[in-house]
Amino acid sequence: MAKASRSIDLTQVSEWEEGKLRRFQDYLVAEEPLEIRLGGTPLTVTMRTPGHDLELAAGFLSTEGLIQKREQIASLNEGASEKPEAAGNLVQVELAGSDFEPGRMQRNFFAASSCGICGKSSIDAIRVRGISPPDPEFRLDADELCRLPDKLRAAQTIFGRTGGLHAAGLFTAQGDLILVREDVGRHNAVDKIVGWALLEGRLPLSKCALMVSGRGGFEIIQKALVAGVPLLASVSAPSGLAVRLARELGLTLVGFLRGRRFLIYSGEQRLLSSRSGV
Amino acid sequence: MAKASRSIDLTQVSEWEEGKLRRFQDYLVAEEPLEIRLGGTPLTVTMRTPGHDLELAAGFLSTEGLIQKREQIASLNEGASEKPEAAGNLVQVELAGSDFEPGRMQRNFFAASSCGICGKSSIDAIRVRGISPPDPEFRLDADELCRLPDKLRAAQTIFGRTGGLHAAGLFTAQGDLILVREDVGRHNAVDKIVGWALLEGRLPLSKCALMVSGRGGFEIIQKALVAGVPLLASVSAPSGLAVRLARELGLTLVGFLRGRRFLIYSGEQRLLSSRSGV
Repeated sequence: MAKASRSIDLTQVSEWEEGKLRRFQDYLVAEEPLEIRLGGTPLTVTMRTPGHDLELAAGFLSTEGLIQKREQIASLNEGASEKPEAAGNLVQVELAGSDFEPGRMQRNFFAASSCGICGKSSIDAIRVRGISPPDPEFRLDADELCRLPDKLRAAQTIFGRTGGLHAAGLFTAQGDLILVREDVGRHNAVDKIVGWALLEGRLPLSKCALMVSGRGGFEIIQKALVAGVPLLASVSAPSGLAVRLARELGLTLVGFLRGRRFLIYSGEQRLLSSRSGV
Repeated sequence: MAKASRSIDLTQVSEWEEGKLRRFQDYLVAEEPLEIRLGGTPLTVTMRTPGHDLELAAGFLSTEGLIQKREQIASLNEGASEKPEAAGNLVQVELAGSDFEPGRMQRNFFAASSCGICGKSSIDAIRVRGISPPDPEFRLDADELCRLPDKLRAAQTIFGRTGGLHAAGLFTAQGDLILVREDVGRHNAVDKIVGWALLEGRLPLSKCALMVSGRGGFEIIQKALVAGVPLLASVSAPSGLAVRLARELGLTLVGFLRGRRFLIYSGEQRLLSSRSGV
């Protein structure tokens, strides 16, 4: 399998259509494990699409509650691995000075990754992390909201060639696209956006809407809330727990955003008091 | 939010369409954390759709390489939790006698969950687990394959009401549906199927095809191979690493299965030497 870029593989496939067979070269989205090492210790391994790995690592540390701001990162590097074939699949992070308390970090990480074993304790664990409700003044025009899916799709550079991965897009309150990130994992696409914002000093994202392909699960809502995003939209359905979390913490949650129709599960005032005048 | 069943939540939503607003009650797929405890020790917490939890736990243990057969499970129970609100979100497993070696188990689990940090070592780790190539004699007619998506969709009881979750379906070589499982996590839907097969004494699934909604990533291919499935089909794209793994271990991998067309990434002899006669 030849390598077209770090994010795309090129391979031979067979197409069957109405009993006829055709062979051609096709693009596949790349998937490789990334290890994030913190202070020399392995923290996590995630299967991801290579590209924007430093942003992914920074975003992961942020949305999992290990860091809150850029200044807590002393260094962030694509590390050389012991194994040559793993080159490019390692990010090394060093945290700065007095903020670094392994004990507290461990507790936070545990809280984020396996926070109790019922929905209520999952939501409580996020409250405990001191996440405040996102900006109540944010407004997005409902007509503009309907245009986000087309804008996101148009900006997906990898999807067009491979047809196979998730995207997350960050938009202004006027519906202008700020950033798009793509990944085999929806959570990674969101972490890459949050990591970009952290590294650019743009957190919290209190003046932005986030749109994701696919479904809105608990984990995605949690990451949006940590980043301070006031409005999350997806093209498909949220889960019951995702809706409960969005309501309890005041996030505007939109689902089934397709054409000139969408469903609002939480925080409709951010959409309905705009000039679209509903 | 009223509870309609363990797998479905019912809630109030607002529908915006062409500037008009309508409020109604809608169904949401449920998502709750499940803790799997092994010999009294927490092993993992996964966000899943409640239902078939014992199968999910058994399937997880199997596809992660911790057990190989039914007899290794001494007991499997929906455990009573310390917290009343977590009732129903805990499965307790005890393994049988001499097979239980915590040290080896730990190594296997590590290999499965963070197996090295490049695609090559990820594939090597699966080889090391002694997974043999699936049945080379299995055949599925290409015309029958084209009918699987409709059969899977028709059997999805939760999706029809919530529009929002993944499904996995197990089929015979004649294209008859054996079992369907749905979950917010695609990997959980597959684990529920494999767990059912393990508990029913049906592993390996060497005479079955597995179809999943969405994409075919590395993790799904790995689970199918562990269960001995010879053919995996999905309605969307696989990743590059998924294709490499399927080719190296001899799994037939189909993607973009829609209408009367599909792409074959690996193992086409299982489809093309059938009576469809290509």
